[in-house]
Amino acid sequence: MTVDDPGDRPRPLDRPRPRAAHRDLERYAGLFAARTQNMKSSAMRDLMALTQRPEVISLAGGLPDTSLFPAEDLAKHLSVVAAEGSARALQYAPTEGLAEVKEAIREVLRAEGDDADPDDVLVTTGGQQVIDLVCKTLVDAGDVVVAEAPTYPGAVPAFAAYQADVVQVAMDADGLRVDVLEETLDALAADGRTPKFIYTIPNFQNPGGVTLSLPRRRRLVEVARERELLILEDNPYGLLRFEGTPLPTLRSLDGGEFVISLGTFSKILSPGLRLGWAVAPHPVLAKMNIGKAASDLNSSSLTQLFVATFFRDGDWRGYLDKQCALYCARRDVMLEALEAHFPPTATWTRPEGGLFVWVTLPDGLDTTDLLAKALSRDVAFVPGRAAYLDGRGGASLRLNFSGVGADDIREGVRRIGVVVREQLELLDRLTGVPPVRRPADLPAPDPTLADVLELPRRGPDPAGSRRGTSSS
Amino acid sequence: MTVDDPGDRPRPLDRPRPRAAHRDLERYAGLFAARTQNMKSSAMRDLMALTQRPEVISLAGGLPDTSLFPAEDLAKHLSVVAAEGSARALQYAPTEGLAEVKEAIREVLRAEGDDADPDDVLVTTGGQQVIDLVCKTLVDAGDVVVAEAPTYPGAVPAFAAYQADVVQVAMDADGLRVDVLEETLDALAADGRTPKFIYTIPNFQNPGGVTLSLPRRRRLVEVARERELLILEDNPYGLLRFEGTPLPTLRSLDGGEFVISLGTFSKILSPGLRLGWAVAPHPVLAKMNIGKAASDLNSSSLTQLFVATFFRDGDWRGYLDKQCALYCARRDVMLEALEAHFPPTATWTRPEGGLFVWVTLPDGLDTTDLLAKALSRDVAFVPGRAAYLDGRGGASLRLNFSGVGADDIREGVRRIGVVVREQLELLDRLTGVPPVRRPADLPAPDPTLADVLELPRRGPDPAGSRRGTSSS
Repeated sequence: MTVDDPGDRPRPLDRPRPRAAHRDLERYAGLFAARTQNMKSSAMRDLMALTQRPEVISLAGGLPDTSLFPAEDLAKHLSVVAAEGSARALQYAPTEGLAEVKEAIREVLRAEGDDADPDDVLVTTGGQQVIDLVCKTLVDAGDVVVAEAPTYPGAVPAFAAYQADVVQVAMDADGLRVDVLEETLDALAADGRTPKFIYTIPNFQNPGGVTLSLPRRRRLVEVARERELLILEDNPYGLLRFEGTPLPTLRSLDGGEFVISLGTFSKILSPGLRLGWAVAPHPVLAKMNIGKAASDLNSSSLTQLFVATFFRDGDWRGYLDKQCALYCARRDVMLEALEAHFPPTATWTRPEGGLFVWVTLPDGLDTTDLLAKALSRDVAFVPGRAAYLDGRGGASLRLNFSGVGADDIREGVRRIGVVVREQLELLDRLTGVPPVRRPADLPAPDPTLADVLELPRRGPDPAGSRRGTSSS
Repeated sequence: MTVDDPGDRPRPLDRPRPRAAHRDLERYAGLFAARTQNMKSSAMRDLMALTQRPEVISLAGGLPDTSLFPAEDLAKHLSVVAAEGSARALQYAPTEGLAEVKEAIREVLRAEGDDADPDDVLVTTGGQQVIDLVCKTLVDAGDVVVAEAPTYPGAVPAFAAYQADVVQVAMDADGLRVDVLEETLDALAADGRTPKFIYTIPNFQNPGGVTLSLPRRRRLVEVARERELLILEDNPYGLLRFEGTPLPTLRSLDGGEFVISLGTFSKILSPGLRLGWAVAPHPVLAKMNIGKAASDLNSSSLTQLFVATFFRDGDWRGYLDKQCALYCARRDVMLEALEAHFPPTATWTRPEGGLFVWVTLPDGLDTTDLLAKALSRDVAFVPGRAAYLDGRGGASLRLNFSGVGADDIREGVRRIGVVVREQLELLDRLTGVPPVRRPADLPAPDPTLADVLELPRRGPDPAGSRRGTSSS
């Protein structure tokens, strides 16, 4: 004890305590759970920090444009929440969620031709928590989970935290290759392994931008029923369709009793509320409910009551239409900008809705390396590797068109295009062989995304097999 | 396929789909992760369902009285949030939390003589998420966690979800028996085992109601430093002190660099916001941050901005004082009612703050059985077993005095007293031996709670060793 140590009295500090001792990673290394070895900081999260600078045009996020929601409407609905029951808004809620929020959820489900018994609905702290709770309920270390290739970058650290053995199955312009899925399931079965669930984003996939066709939807739920496998249907964007025919959810098809449905208010209303939901077979939902109580007791009563009030008094369909119109225009701007500023050897998807375009560059370029150069020009994207658990995706990148204005989309894509061309020229000088030109338009549904978008078709990409350098 | 099956078209359902198939637990049993075997529905959660009936006086919850917060203040601060930046309130936030919320957290820390570098603070979805994230970061299946006996009932399913081997160490009227802790650590070390962390609630313990004395606080952090062990200091109630001298937090004492501090806005402001925080050694906090991103991306921006606005514009200390005055009066009512309505053979704690009184009944009574009888008289409490992982606690119960008005406290305690006396008389008739009378006042600090409150001192209670029936 030093002389000026106040000892037993609470001591008001002028400055925070020094952290030197806390920085000693070695001291703590032995303490960490095995699962933390896989829990690398996701590329998306690191990016978020890098893209905080106001001068950066970030096409990296997955943000809806919340400036569309009128401030006066937010104030109005919140004041109704306060007036109708401030004590309830500030109090704990049941873990499963408030009844009036479940009714709002049913309204969203019905808008996609689905519905659910309120007892089969769990209100969650965003859609992300559903992925976490499904893993918590089903996945032991080493268990197989099947996902799409590429898959939602935010699911990658969630799967990793449960030490899942994630097998990623190829997609093409019609979404998940269900035929390849069946081959994969056969191969796993021959190995004595059964996936705990199949994770799919059927509508305007994140990050691929593609949509699962109706015949494949039918076949996918049949496969699930035949093999008694659960599907986790992640559907944040289904109602953000700009064009084309809406398709039924997997859960609403025959065989849908094997589907756990993940929904969220994040993309149709606001991610700042942190409210999503799961609809699941009852025994699974019951376990998820217990898991949620252990994780965070319940989701915010205040934000739940805001949703309930907005769905009762407001025009959620009108707000959705406003978003769709805006995002559709921005998608068009992005596709035009890609055409104008990207080399003819690049390819990209043309989503009918959602938030993302997936771009694949010629062989030899690595988008993780490219990101550093892009950031020096004040523009950001998600490198493709973030969408894989096995180091693949190095030639691809994800671009968001929902959260950024048209001028910034044009300028952002232009800046990335400059960096891409510079790198291509550098590569050309180094190798003397110009990269092969490939068609800029998406081909017919037959080829897999692996073919179209320069992703290896199956299995992990051996380091360096497709390019000179490796940086995974 | 039936004739009226709409097949591939989205089908608006008049009624939710039937769930018969979903009820088939057997079909799913093989799917569940091993951790779910331990994730029993906590007694508290089941209780919440039972106590929903409006006629039930529930002394079971851990609810602050949120009706104290004026509805017009809630509306006012929320309208400021909307006016100052609705787009931000509705948008994603950084995983670590908003800077202005961290400043509010520092203000709370300073009120207890502590402080923290904002970089060492993680804003969480309630205090419960801190327990979850600490386990996620540190605990592999079978790892030892040391907790108090009894411990927070909500921590029990969290520990169970990570398959921790929880060793519970006795308390007495001065809180955790640090000497017994040292013996326990020695015994574990002799077995080659080191706890991943020591979980303690030093102030107005939940459920025990007791407070860790200053000499024991000093010794506890010394023990942590000597043995290089992390402590999880769960401190939701520290500022809810009605009387006596405030004691320094463990983190602010010498040796505090081994302390992970858990705080929450739930008890000083509102649990409906779902906002808490962790202050942790940086390498640990960095892992917790990654774990949180995988769990729920970030905590609600809307509720974070409400907290920031309230701490800036409102009078959080004034609101805290109002709560303390009310809870103090209710505690007094509860202690008087216990004196009036409980048999002289019962004992209970006299907390200087917080929300809970812990009552222990004479041998032979089982509070889990008693709860069913109490509910038939429209009154509820938490049976003691919910605070143990090993089936102990059957003779005790937790009563909450913060969430219920004075008249309901009197009537609720009276009703429980009637049930207790009825059971005692029944027991007396069956055995012919009247239970031993014990002093109603808390004795000097020496005896452990195990002695005082009829809990076994160490190790699991062999079924039936202390009473005629077993119902664990």
